[in-house]
Amino acid sequence: MPMTRPAVATLSLALALACTTSVAAAPKAPANARSMQEIIDASRPSDWRRLDPRDTLYLDLANGHRVVVELAPRFAPQHVAQVRTLAHEGYWNGLSILRSQDNFVVQWGDPEEDAAKKKPTGSAKKHLPAEFTFASKSAPGWTRLPDVDGWAPQVGFVDGIPAGHDPKANTYWMAHCYGAVGAGRNNEADSSDGTELYVVTGQSPRQLDRNMSMVGRVVQGMEWLSTIPRGTGPLGFFEKPEQRVGIRAIRLAADVPESERTNVEVMRTDSPLFAELVEARRNRRDAFYKVQSHHIDLCNVPLPSREAKR
Amino acid sequence: MPMTRPAVATLSLALALACTTSVAAAPKAPANARSMQEIIDASRPSDWRRLDPRDTLYLDLANGHRVVVELAPRFAPQHVAQVRTLAHEGYWNGLSILRSQDNFVVQWGDPEEDAAKKKPTGSAKKHLPAEFTFASKSAPGWTRLPDVDGWAPQVGFVDGIPAGHDPKANTYWMAHCYGAVGAGRNNEADSSDGTELYVVTGQSPRQLDRNMSMVGRVVQGMEWLSTIPRGTGPLGFFEKPEQRVGIRAIRLAADVPESERTNVEVMRTDSPLFAELVEARRNRRDAFYKVQSHHIDLCNVPLPSREAKR
Repeated sequence: MPMTRPAVATLSLALALACTTSVAAAPKAPANARSMQEIIDASRPSDWRRLDPRDTLYLDLANGHRVVVELAPRFAPQHVAQVRTLAHEGYWNGLSILRSQDNFVVQWGDPEEDAAKKKPTGSAKKHLPAEFTFASKSAPGWTRLPDVDGWAPQVGFVDGIPAGHDPKANTYWMAHCYGAVGAGRNNEADSSDGTELYVVTGQSPRQLDRNMSMVGRVVQGMEWLSTIPRGTGPLGFFEKPEQRVGIRAIRLAADVPESERTNVEVMRTDSPLFAELVEARRNRRDAFYKVQSHHIDLCNVPLPSREAKR
Repeated sequence: MPMTRPAVATLSLALALACTTSVAAAPKAPANARSMQEIIDASRPSDWRRLDPRDTLYLDLANGHRVVVELAPRFAPQHVAQVRTLAHEGYWNGLSILRSQDNFVVQWGDPEEDAAKKKPTGSAKKHLPAEFTFASKSAPGWTRLPDVDGWAPQVGFVDGIPAGHDPKANTYWMAHCYGAVGAGRNNEADSSDGTELYVVTGQSPRQLDRNMSMVGRVVQGMEWLSTIPRGTGPLGFFEKPEQRVGIRAIRLAADVPESERTNVEVMRTDSPLFAELVEARRNRRDAFYKVQSHHIDLCNVPLPSREAKR
């Protein structure tokens, strides 16, 4: 039946994407260029990185589905520490997803607006600094994408996370790609306390880059968040409590018995294999594509994940 | 409560975006720059364009929800003519959405794989040419975006539709932004017959630009497509017939009694007001934003629509 072939990609030489600075333009693809699937199939264990249970969050929805988030402490260390504390103390258990705005974000937290009645935050800090960017002369594992980007001087990956980089200011920040997890705030830059988190479910809203403290990325289960019916109130908030999707628990994997863990590994982004995958997606070599892009946007780069063997 | 403020934008001078060639860089925003909402509130009737019933498709789902598509005949005239024929003759009525792939597309058509048993296509043509781009020295109403784009030499809007443009080749094509509607095909460029249509529900898959015959854009009701549970088969196809979302009818608005029509108007993209809106989104001036982008990607530009008065 006629269909849009989506995924089957192809091609490429291992570009020197994996080094700290890297790459300008892509060489011509060889005839024997491999597809994304062939690249994944040919990967070795060292091309993958198992999630650290201390940096892994399970969002277990009341409907039984699990969303796996990898925390990214390099970007916003105090916010990530706060999220670990809140999860460890069960802060979100029994709360719910409050907002689902089409082509933008879902968001969860405490629906109570009366400060006196809000759920206690235990040993979490009452105040956190804004952590929109981090400064580093060269972020470990920085893998630059070769292509132009309108939102940042450079883009690439830090610790497997899509990121922007300003080489003049020596700063890096998490990009608002599909699945990015950030801390909601009010107008004041330092008004996020980590209790209210949002996940990007729509076209990358990169105007938020450098404006938010970002804590991680969904690596599995995005489909359980992206299909939540949209809220009909302003900003996609649910107008009636019964419309909210309940949260059974948000826990650190380290706090979950091994038998209940979801063991996930993600492809390393600082390897020649990943560079080959990027190039395969910059120029699709399979028979479906009649015109090739010679380009990929940061938020279109696939970040493979899979079940890790115990 | 802490939240990510999404929409409230701001600013700007009416850039000369509305002319055929246009604009390089944005001037500094004046202090009295208007927000997107203020711009919309200040719009005049002439800033809007009512959809032509001959170019409007209603996708009425079996669950009662309606999706409104504006057909864009300039991009793929023979495909759009075919879609009009198929809708007029009720081809899709009683068929269903066959595919929902997370962060990519939904797609509908005839699930039957046996050619002998497929639903007859009536007076539709058996074969259509590939219509991936159209040639024009200057597309009427071409409104260029000022910002860099990695997928096309130039980007902007044609007839209110996000589009790419190659000024050397004098060609234009529809961009795969959220809500874009295209004709599925097999590997052969001319294998789409318009019976199987897809809608972009994920991060703009612009690698498909110039590879597909595109028929229009969803202007209302995207939330009914974007929240369809994801299919668990390859490419997001549903594995069991009962998982599919039924289509009650797909009809041309012109074939629908006036009392049952959804009257929609969309903001013109070739006006000074729209240029002001784009600039308001390139640089958010409200108190929430601490860093401004000085940039917007084509697929992030909002395309306002609203109920039209009868």
